[in-house]
Amino acid sequence: MEKKLSTESYKGVRDFYPEDFAVLEYIFTSWRKTLKGFGYEEYNASVLEPAELYRAKSGEEIVNEQTYTFTDRGDREVTLRPEMTPTVARMVAARRRELPLPIRWFSIPNVFRYEKPQRGRLREHFQLNVDLFGVDSIEADFEMILIASNIMKNLGVDEEKYEIKLNSRSLMDFMMQTVLGLSPEITHKLGKLIDRKNKVTRADFESEAELLCGNKSTAFLKFIDAPDLTTFQKALGTSHESFDHLESLIRRADDVGIENVVFDQTLMRGFDYYTGLVFEVFDKHPDNRRALFGGGRYDDLLSLFGGDKIPAIGFGMGDVTTRDVLETYGLLPKTLSVADVALCPLSFDFIPYAQHLAIKLRAEGARVSIDITGKRLGDQIKNADKKGIPFVLPIGEDEVKNKVFKIKHLSTGKEVEVTEDSLIETLTTKEK
Amino acid sequence: MEKKLSTESYKGVRDFYPEDFAVLEYIFTSWRKTLKGFGYEEYNASVLEPAELYRAKSGEEIVNEQTYTFTDRGDREVTLRPEMTPTVARMVAARRRELPLPIRWFSIPNVFRYEKPQRGRLREHFQLNVDLFGVDSIEADFEMILIASNIMKNLGVDEEKYEIKLNSRSLMDFMMQTVLGLSPEITHKLGKLIDRKNKVTRADFESEAELLCGNKSTAFLKFIDAPDLTTFQKALGTSHESFDHLESLIRRADDVGIENVVFDQTLMRGFDYYTGLVFEVFDKHPDNRRALFGGGRYDDLLSLFGGDKIPAIGFGMGDVTTRDVLETYGLLPKTLSVADVALCPLSFDFIPYAQHLAIKLRAEGARVSIDITGKRLGDQIKNADKKGIPFVLPIGEDEVKNKVFKIKHLSTGKEVEVTEDSLIETLTTKEK
Repeated sequence: MEKKLSTESYKGVRDFYPEDFAVLEYIFTSWRKTLKGFGYEEYNASVLEPAELYRAKSGEEIVNEQTYTFTDRGDREVTLRPEMTPTVARMVAARRRELPLPIRWFSIPNVFRYEKPQRGRLREHFQLNVDLFGVDSIEADFEMILIASNIMKNLGVDEEKYEIKLNSRSLMDFMMQTVLGLSPEITHKLGKLIDRKNKVTRADFESEAELLCGNKSTAFLKFIDAPDLTTFQKALGTSHESFDHLESLIRRADDVGIENVVFDQTLMRGFDYYTGLVFEVFDKHPDNRRALFGGGRYDDLLSLFGGDKIPAIGFGMGDVTTRDVLETYGLLPKTLSVADVALCPLSFDFIPYAQHLAIKLRAEGARVSIDITGKRLGDQIKNADKKGIPFVLPIGEDEVKNKVFKIKHLSTGKEVEVTEDSLIETLTTKEK
Repeated sequence: MEKKLSTESYKGVRDFYPEDFAVLEYIFTSWRKTLKGFGYEEYNASVLEPAELYRAKSGEEIVNEQTYTFTDRGDREVTLRPEMTPTVARMVAARRRELPLPIRWFSIPNVFRYEKPQRGRLREHFQLNVDLFGVDSIEADFEMILIASNIMKNLGVDEEKYEIKLNSRSLMDFMMQTVLGLSPEITHKLGKLIDRKNKVTRADFESEAELLCGNKSTAFLKFIDAPDLTTFQKALGTSHESFDHLESLIRRADDVGIENVVFDQTLMRGFDYYTGLVFEVFDKHPDNRRALFGGGRYDDLLSLFGGDKIPAIGFGMGDVTTRDVLETYGLLPKTLSVADVALCPLSFDFIPYAQHLAIKLRAEGARVSIDITGKRLGDQIKNADKKGIPFVLPIGEDEVKNKVFKIKHLSTGKEVEVTEDSLIETLTTKEK
């Protein structure tokens, strides 16, 4: 008990002091409002999952090196979830017979990864997860684009500030395997190279492409460099159902006034489990061009649990990136005050009356903080001001006797005389 | 990839399917409303904490045997937080110079314990934590009682259904050490015995008391059996400041209409760190008398981090117990519907129009689900009904051309003709 304890948190994770929690809450509230607008239901699960849930899809190495995995005293291997998709797939598979399709679900879990902490890449963050199960048509794909766009709108980000990039995994497979005649193994490696395109130099990209495709690399580079969907299709010189699909999505978005949806054949998204459409919301800010969030179709994942396939599409969006965007564009609201009014008793004797009054006000929905420090009125008012509380109400002998109060609006200095009854009105109608 | 994956969650934790998440959300919303009413600010932290945070207070054994503790690859010992008090103490201590006192904070963290899963005792649960730092007077103690009572009121539990029990750790120490002349070691053991009083037979309690107190056990039992505060004080035969303190709390609660606050000298609460008032909300249900939640004053805990003492009082309340109480007394609301209206396109051709209409309705705050399954209208309506969506709106050729719709209220079967403009009004004013 004598050693002085450190006040530091565990490495790479965050403490959410009230001002930081308020930002998190603001983001979560905006996400929830958007998803509820589309009729999505919220779910969640424990952060603890059996390690085998990730080994099946990600392989031994990733589980051992990039996740928090440990053995419990019952010899079970447990992982702190690194992403939510395996969990939601597990939950849907567990009740596939009872849950009516389609399933529209969202969640805001915290997820963990074991890596060196660096800017924007913490060991724990929160992530909005949106998934639609049971519909394999373009309608589900389009709904994801509508939701992604609406999320940005509800966060206050102008459509000109970002793009929604689309691509199709099956189109990319078609290009590499059918048109270029490459093997599935080379296709997989080439896909990883495309995913890294903006992180390597052009020279490195070209030489790695040549290593993988040999004499097909000229054609490959021509496909990759095509500036738009039409040029890409022409370069490919053959048709594929994805062209119609992607064109329809862009046109239909345009029809409802969403004009920032574009095709990008270099968009891959990391996960191996994507099977069709992949998409990404991309920040065009000149100093910080980057992916904000994205996802795609994963029609095969649920068959890992046995039973029939269930088509699925979804995406994830992190709280750290979201806060970054809101800060970059000045979209964070001013901190909300912790209470509507501070009751300031002139001595301890008047606290019981203050509590009686507070009970009445709270019953009407007001947020009431009572100063119980016994400090002088001036200090009580200073403290209320520091906490951003808009009104103070001194309580002394006269007030208790006559039930008439002087309520003071701190930012304007204006004082108004009120009764118990008119007080609640003043608190709810005045600007705060 | 070929082995069939299990759909089971990790042992002793819960999946929150939407119907379960809705209950959690209902409880959290009620808790938040109450605490915001008292001017409390919400905070949080990571579930990962350095293991030493718990070793200092709880000892090696508890950390090793009752918590999830593991070593990360940087050789740091990490614990999944078993309770929130050490975390909040750490956070307050870290910013003691910047944070203006008093600090009124609450949080709804998930906490973990490593033990055999059993009814109501899961390995992970959520816990409301309420703490007030910087005030050592009766005013802070009374505020806790007011909050505890208001939490129960906002959850809809009648005051007759439960009691708020009070005791004082310093009064108990006074009784055992000063009045009975027992050593601090025996006092500590006797305190643990009192804590177990209702879990052992009377005979066992008496014989264990005799083992610990010897010839003082008759006096000890007389003190323990005193039926109320006055009798207890008389039995003790000497005065102590706690008597006034406890009497004041009970009288002041009574003054504001809270009539279920009682003294109970057998109330100890588990944690060693309590220093003054301890209290507990106790369910009087004849089939299930038990503690629902509680807490106490812990004025010494922050000095573990060095620097001056900061007086503190707080309590915690779990989600599992809370759900139990709401179920026992039939206080859970009916499940809320996932959307206000289901738009039902008669074929895929009418989905784009439905999306256009949905965008308008969502902009007005409505929750709109579009059926994109391509099923027959009858099946679409059945599905909406299954999901508890109150209204359906079929969309076909006539509707798209004339912009006049028949909206149907499923539970009454009533159909009303509406335009795009009158639709939003119908959705928000009709009973749902």
